Amino acid sequence: MDKKYDIEDLCERFKDEDKVALARLITLIENEPDSALEIFQHLDDIEHESYIIGLTGSPGVGKSTLTGQLVKRLVEKDMKVGVISVDPTSPFSGGAFLGDRVRLSEISCHPNVFMRSLASRGYKGGISRAVFDISLLYEAFGMDVIIIETVGVGQAEFEIYKLVYTTILILIPGAGDSIQAQKAGIIEIADIYDINKKDLGGDEVAVQIEMMLDDATATQSGWRPPVIMTNSIKGEGVDELLERIWEHKEYVELSDLFEEKKKRRYAYKVKDAIMNKIESILLNNLFNEEDLKDIGSKIVNNKFKIHEKIHNIFENVHFDIKKE
Amino acid sequence: MDKKYDIEDLCERFKDEDKVALARLITLIENEPDSALEIFQHLDDIEHESYIIGLTGSPGVGKSTLTGQLVKRLVEKDMKVGVISVDPTSPFSGGAFLGDRVRLSEISCHPNVFMRSLASRGYKGGISRAVFDISLLYEAFGMDVIIIETVGVGQAEFEIYKLVYTTILILIPGAGDSIQAQKAGIIEIADIYDINKKDLGGDEVAVQIEMMLDDATATQSGWRPPVIMTNSIKGEGVDELLERIWEHKEYVELSDLFEEKKKRRYAYKVKDAIMNKIESILLNNLFNEEDLKDIGSKIVNNKFKIHEKIHNIFENVHFDIKKE
Repeated sequence: MDKKYDIEDLCERFKDEDKVALARLITLIENEPDSALEIFQHLDDIEHESYIIGLTGSPGVGKSTLTGQLVKRLVEKDMKVGVISVDPTSPFSGGAFLGDRVRLSEISCHPNVFMRSLASRGYKGGISRAVFDISLLYEAFGMDVIIIETVGVGQAEFEIYKLVYTTILILIPGAGDSIQAQKAGIIEIADIYDINKKDLGGDEVAVQIEMMLDDATATQSGWRPPVIMTNSIKGEGVDELLERIWEHKEYVELSDLFEEKKKRRYAYKVKDAIMNKIESILLNNLFNEEDLKDIGSKIVNNKFKIHEKIHNIFENVHFDIKKE
Repeated sequence: MDKKYDIEDLCERFKDEDKVALARLITLIENEPDSALEIFQHLDDIEHESYIIGLTGSPGVGKSTLTGQLVKRLVEKDMKVGVISVDPTSPFSGGAFLGDRVRLSEISCHPNVFMRSLASRGYKGGISRAVFDISLLYEAFGMDVIIIETVGVGQAEFEIYKLVYTTILILIPGAGDSIQAQKAGIIEIADIYDINKKDLGGDEVAVQIEMMLDDATATQSGWRPPVIMTNSIKGEGVDELLERIWEHKEYVELSDLFEEKKKRRYAYKVKDAIMNKIESILLNNLFNEEDLKDIGSKIVNNKFKIHEKIHNIFENVHFDIKKE
C-alpha cells in the first residue's frame, strides 16, 4: 500500500473524528518522528486551541487516579479530553507496568476521551519530542482539554512544564524528608498544589507549603498558587481541584501569560528538534556506539587523561554550522 | 593572583591530601567545566582506582540516611570515602533544601570522608558532566569507595548508572502503585535491591521483586541480584547491605565486567562532552534564547505548521561536521 496515501487517508478519517485514525497517527508519530511533517501538512487548515494541563509528582502520589477523576468530571461536562501519561519505563524490556492504567480503562472507552501511555525512555528524539507531537495531534483532533501526566523529578521530565499552561504539583503527606525533596524539585513552577491522600494527614504539608509560598518571590506575579487537599481514590476534593484549574485558566487567558506560555511551548519544541537533529547526525555518523566504545577502551588505562583526549577530539573535529 | 599558578598550587596541596584543596577544585570544576582539562594535566601521574557505587531511588526512600550509615561503616574500616549527592533542586532559586544533608554533617567531618551535594539542574554541561568530573577527582584523591546518590527516576538522572560499578535500588514498602512505577523505572539495572523502612512491611515488596527476578532475562548474566531489607534510621540491615556490595564487587572484579563497566563509564563521558560542546555552540550562536523566542512568536498563530517551520530551518542550516 502506498504510504503517502495511507497518511492522507488516515488524516481524512482523523478529521471525521475517527479515534482509530487518531490512534494510528499517534503510533506513526511515536515510531517515525519524521512522519510528523507530512501528517501536519494534511492538518494545517484546522483551527482549534486546547487548554493544556500538566500533572506532576513523584511515583506513588496518585497521579493516574487523579487524572481519571478529572477526566470523568470533564466528560460529564461534554468536554473532549486527551491524556498523555509519561511512564518511567525500563530502557531494557521496553515494557511498562501498566497496572495504574488498567484502572482507567473504563473511562478511556468514553467516546470523548483518548488516553496514551508513553514510556519515558528509549524514544527516538526523546520523550519531549513525542509528548509535544502527540499534544499537537490532540489539539488538531479538537480536544478541549489535554492532560499531560508525568513524574516531575528528572531533568528531562521536569522540562515538560514548558509544554503546558497550568502545572499542578501533587504531594503526599507523611513522607517527611521526601516532601522536602519533592518541594525542592519542582515547587516554584507549580500553579496549583494538591496534597493527595489527605487522610494520611495533609494539614502539616499544607502549612509548610503556605509558609514557603509566603517567602517565595515567585508569587509576586499576581497568582498566589492555591494549596488544596484531595483523596483521589474516594474522589474527595477533586471538584475543588477542577475549580482551581478553571480559575488559573481564566487568570492565564486574561493576561499576557497565555501568549507567553504558547511562545515558550513552541520555542521549546524548536530547540528540542534542533538538538535531536544534531544528536542523530553526530551519533549516527562521527561517533557511533562502536567509535565511542573504542575511545572508551583507549582511555581505560589512562583515565586521568580523559579531558586531554576529549580536548584532542575537539581539536580534530570541525563543526561548521551556518544559517543561510 | 595568577590563575594558572593557583590551579597548580591547589593540585600540589590536593596531592598532599588537603581536603580544602579538594573542595576548591570541585568548586572550580562545578563552575568552570573547562578547568577540568588543566586540573587533570597536573594529576595525570596519579595511579589509583576507586570502587564506585550508585545509590538510587525515589525521593523519600531514605537514600541520604542509608548513605550516612554506609559511610560510617566504611570509615570504621579505615577506608577513604567520597560522596556525591544529586539533589533535585529548583532551577529558579538555585537553593537546595539541605535538611537531609545536615544530618550527615557529623560523619562528613571525619578526615577520611568527603561529601558534596549537587543540584540536579542548572549545571553548565548538565549534571552527568559534573558527577563524572567530581568522581574522577575523588579517584585522584585516593578514595577507596565513591558513593553516587541520586534520584533514579528521570531520564538524565537514570543514566548515572553508566558511571558506577554497583547499582543499588532502594524501594519502600506500602506505596502500592508507587512500587510498580519505581520498579518499572530502573529495576533491570539494579545489582542489589534494598527495601528500606522495612518496619512498614517489606515482605510483600520483597516477594514481588523476587518474582520479577525469576521472570527476568537479565538475571541470566550470572549474578542474581539479592533483595535485602534495611531500616536506615535504626541502622538495621546495613551490615548485610555492605556484605552484598562486597560480594557484587568481587563478582565484577573477577569477570570481564569490570573492564566493560570502566569502558562504558569513559565512553559515556566522551559522548556527554561531545553533546555538550555542540549544544553550547548551537545555543550560544545560531539559536540563542532570543532567536528561539522569535521563532516561537512566528509560530504561535500557525501552530500546525511548526513541523514545516522546523523542516525549513534544517533546509537552511548547514551542518558540516568532520573528523580530520
